Amino acid sequence: MPVRTVVWGENIHEQTNEDVRALYPEGMHGAIAAALAEDGNIQVSVATLQDAEHGLSEERLAATDVLTWWGHRAHGDVSDEVVARVQRRVWEGMGLIVLHSGHYSKIFRLLMGTPCSLKWREAGERERLWVVNRGHPIARGLGDYVELPNTEMYGEPFAVPEPMETVFISWYEGGEVFRSGMTFQRGAGRIFYLSPGHETYPIYHNPEMQQILRNAVNWAYNPMPGWSSITQAPNVPIEQAREKLVQKGARLHADGEEGFR
Amino acid sequence: MPVRTVVWGENIHEQTNEDVRALYPEGMHGAIAAALAEDGNIQVSVATLQDAEHGLSEERLAATDVLTWWGHRAHGDVSDEVVARVQRRVWEGMGLIVLHSGHYSKIFRLLMGTPCSLKWREAGERERLWVVNRGHPIARGLGDYVELPNTEMYGEPFAVPEPMETVFISWYEGGEVFRSGMTFQRGAGRIFYLSPGHETYPIYHNPEMQQILRNAVNWAYNPMPGWSSITQAPNVPIEQAREKLVQKGARLHADGEEGFR
Amino acid sequence: MPVRTVVWGENIHEQTNEDVRALYPEGMHGAIAAALAEDGNIQVSVATLQDAEHGLSEERLAATDVLTWWGHRAHGDVSDEVVARVQRRVWEGMGLIVLHSGHYSKIFRLLMGTPCSLKWREAGERERLWVVNRGHPIARGLGDYVELPNTEMYGEPFAVPEPMETVFISWYEGGEVFRSGMTFQRGAGRIFYLSPGHETYPIYHNPEMQQILRNAVNWAYNPMPGWSSITQAPNVPIEQAREKLVQKGARLHADGEEGFR
Amino acid sequence: MPVRTVVWGENIHEQTNEDVRALYPEGMHGAIAAALAEDGNIQVSVATLQDAEHGLSEERLAATDVLTWWGHRAHGDVSDEVVARVQRRVWEGMGLIVLHSGHYSKIFRLLMGTPCSLKWREAGERERLWVVNRGHPIARGLGDYVELPNTEMYGEPFAVPEPMETVFISWYEGGEVFRSGMTFQRGAGRIFYLSPGHETYPIYHNPEMQQILRNAVNWAYNPMPGWSSITQAPNVPIEQAREKLVQKGARLHADGEEGFR
Repeated sequence: MPVRTVVWGENIHEQTNEDVRALYPEGMHGAIAAALAEDGNIQVSVATLQDAEHGLSEERLAATDVLTWWGHRAHGDVSDEVVARVQRRVWEGMGLIVLHSGHYSKIFRLLMGTPCSLKWREAGERERLWVVNRGHPIARGLGDYVELPNTEMYGEPFAVPEPMETVFISWYEGGEVFRSGMTFQRGAGRIFYLSPGHETYPIYHNPEMQQILRNAVNWAYNPMPGWSSITQAPNVPIEQAREKLVQKGARLHADGEEGFR
Repeated sequence: MPVRTVVWGENIHEQTNEDVRALYPEGMHGAIAAALAEDGNIQVSVATLQDAEHGLSEERLAATDVLTWWGHRAHGDVSDEVVARVQRRVWEGMGLIVLHSGHYSKIFRLLMGTPCSLKWREAGERERLWVVNRGHPIARGLGDYVELPNTEMYGEPFAVPEPMETVFISWYEGGEVFRSGMTFQRGAGRIFYLSPGHETYPIYHNPEMQQILRNAVNWAYNPMPGWSSITQAPNVPIEQAREKLVQKGARLHADGEEGFR
Repeated sequence: MPVRTVVWGENIHEQTNEDVRALYPEGMHGAIAAALAEDGNIQVSVATLQDAEHGLSEERLAATDVLTWWGHRAHGDVSDEVVARVQRRVWEGMGLIVLHSGHYSKIFRLLMGTPCSLKWREAGERERLWVVNRGHPIARGLGDYVELPNTEMYGEPFAVPEPMETVFISWYEGGEVFRSGMTFQRGAGRIFYLSPGHETYPIYHNPEMQQILRNAVNWAYNPMPGWSSITQAPNVPIEQAREKLVQKGARLHADGEEGFR
Repeated sequence: MPVRTVVWGENIHEQTNEDVRALYPEGMHGAIAAALAEDGNIQVSVATLQDAEHGLSEERLAATDVLTWWGHRAHGDVSDEVVARVQRRVWEGMGLIVLHSGHYSKIFRLLMGTPCSLKWREAGERERLWVVNRGHPIARGLGDYVELPNTEMYGEPFAVPEPMETVFISWYEGGEVFRSGMTFQRGAGRIFYLSPGHETYPIYHNPEMQQILRNAVNWAYNPMPGWSSITQAPNVPIEQAREKLVQKGARLHADGEEGFR
């Protein structure tokens, strides 16, 4: 079964900034999609902010196994309705790969429940991602580290919850560190945050970064049927209890009533 | 230093339901506050939905170390502005104790990033909370378990993220189980969810439940200065880098510019 | 690539106890192996305490992807040398499924670093495993719960570290609860503990328990090359540092010396 | 209640190496003890490898709330019996602060269940510990980072289980990173690993490192009565079950028999 993957791109700086366009003539989403397509098991398509419903209709999301998210300057332009839709699909089991400045996207902040703030510096300095969790599927095929000659610095503290797993930690030339690869789970959905990816550097052309992207999509894929009932809070009637019960005490609810929400 | 604690109550069923009023003539918040006040280290006051700003003004929250939250039928009536204010204070370091039906409160769902759904049954059945993490401060002074003769059943799966710690797990007469005491952290704020507390039973009059409430408030108290900068994402100028840097590569931002949000 | 799986059995009660022999004429390991073999992706063989080196030679372990472990009355008879060998393979990436009374095996206690104690009662009571983490691969194909008409009770507190994930929690007729399915990771090796499996009941003949066993083996399989260097602590000579360094300060070690262990 | 703290030191290099003796004329344990004693709430004493029973008799450990551990070249000389004793006290609730080369001590490896290996380089390079978890009690009173002009590099991957919390991450001049402050729990005992502390540099004379040591001791202190039953696996007789039970099915054990271990 192929992993049906949608690469979402904000697609603004590629249109408005010469440097970014020169690096990513097909858009950053185009470069990411091309990298994923090298994995025969990944079936990839793209969606952008400018598409109707940002390219993330109910129907399309229902047929999406993993979504990757790159946004930067227009987080506020993403419709709350679409974000709620994406969040629900993550809860049901869709994987989500959040890239770089996506740390401040609505969807990532909603799933984390924290500010997702960090320090930053755009000096084109060197970054070295160390593999902390060597046995993790997302580190498959890598050596001890991945080196990027030019990067935007993202520095700690990164205001996210304690992760399920820390996969990468980055060293920066200017003296900072960052947990550059972390996993989380929300409902049945696996989430991976990967920090490198500033648009003025050719980071998504780096073969090792491309390998990480492919690994992450395969890791985030949950082949189980979607947990579609996750937003329901069903009453279990007394006569359906697994052990025999006799009603006791006062009640708020009459038989068959729904709970409050 | 006393732990400045605000007990927040929805205060509706105490006014509208005879059974609840009879059990909690001072309101559920009144019973919880009285239980906390038995700890000389806890300085307690109450706030309710009906108060101006629900009793949770900026000033009051700024002077609050721990907030307890009980709500059930009117989650939707809590102002989004006040919820955002509470969330920010949790990030800064305010402790939060979420009680029973508060699992569906706006504040809990926002902090968890998940639906927080569960199964339920109002049959007045027996519940037994087993202490799973015996060395945890929230279990201080308890025996192997706490038994409640009448309870509302809350059943798994409880759609929250994997907790930092599981403190209690409940057994129900009708055959279900529930992770009835769990800890989380968001920013500098510690969060404890405690499931028993249905309004038609005298659960907050139970001495062991009262002990748990006091333990939880003391555990959630973070004596450090509030992390007021947690929502900021500061630029670190190149000349302030801890290691000497030379600007390299293309840039999006001019010196001194703010980042995108 | 098939998952090369070794089913390890203590194989004592099957020889000495009529009830157990009647239930498991091919041994408990035989029943477990047969259940795993129904998955075309699992290539299964068995090993027992009585075999030379308990059937776990260096060569065989090197060619093993996942090991399942059932032991009860003879934990002390397992050679420390073989246990150290198994532990090392887990660190390198071999999956380990620890079953029932294996909670007290040498290998599980060494990997956990805790006593792994619990409460128990052999009354043939009813057990119901609730699926707490519905989206987890180990819960694949299950409904809301699995019911066992007769079981040995294992009760909390279960003295293990906080798990990576809690997959199942059990309800018992006699009033206890237990975290009956939990995941851990040690080095590159994934570990799953599954509590039901008392030898006087036909638990491994239960189709849903068999499904869990197959799911667990597939989940524990780490397809990456073994992390064979995990027990080494290499010196990084100054001239091989990724950033240019000049020796400063006093040293204990001369160039090329090994570290202390 | 004062926190009764024992500072354990290997006390070899202070006797045999001129540089170390010059830096730590009272021993490294002496410097650590002096730093702790500045906190009026900490009651401190020292113990060394050379003392009878390494200074860790049953009686003394029973009266110890927190133990700090520094060892390097003589891990193998620590008696297994004493190590088992310390491990048991940690399970019962004694806090343990493991320092620097103590990563390879018997006690730390036993509690982690992993090799605890890492990379290292003794070049006197600069280290900067970044505070990743700003609201954590162990970071109390610190700024954004702590800078050490000379350190031994400890590099990832550090083969420990995923921690409960990552408090500090270190940046090194030579290009590596390390999770330099991590918390764990085993039984009722809290464990903190802190990596800086090489004996040829004045690291324990650094005021901020001393603050971290005091913070860590206060954090690791568990005021609850020791969980002395943690190594027991009690049978719960059928007639003492909380819910009424009738014996069903076959049994291995006669009434009152102990379980296998």
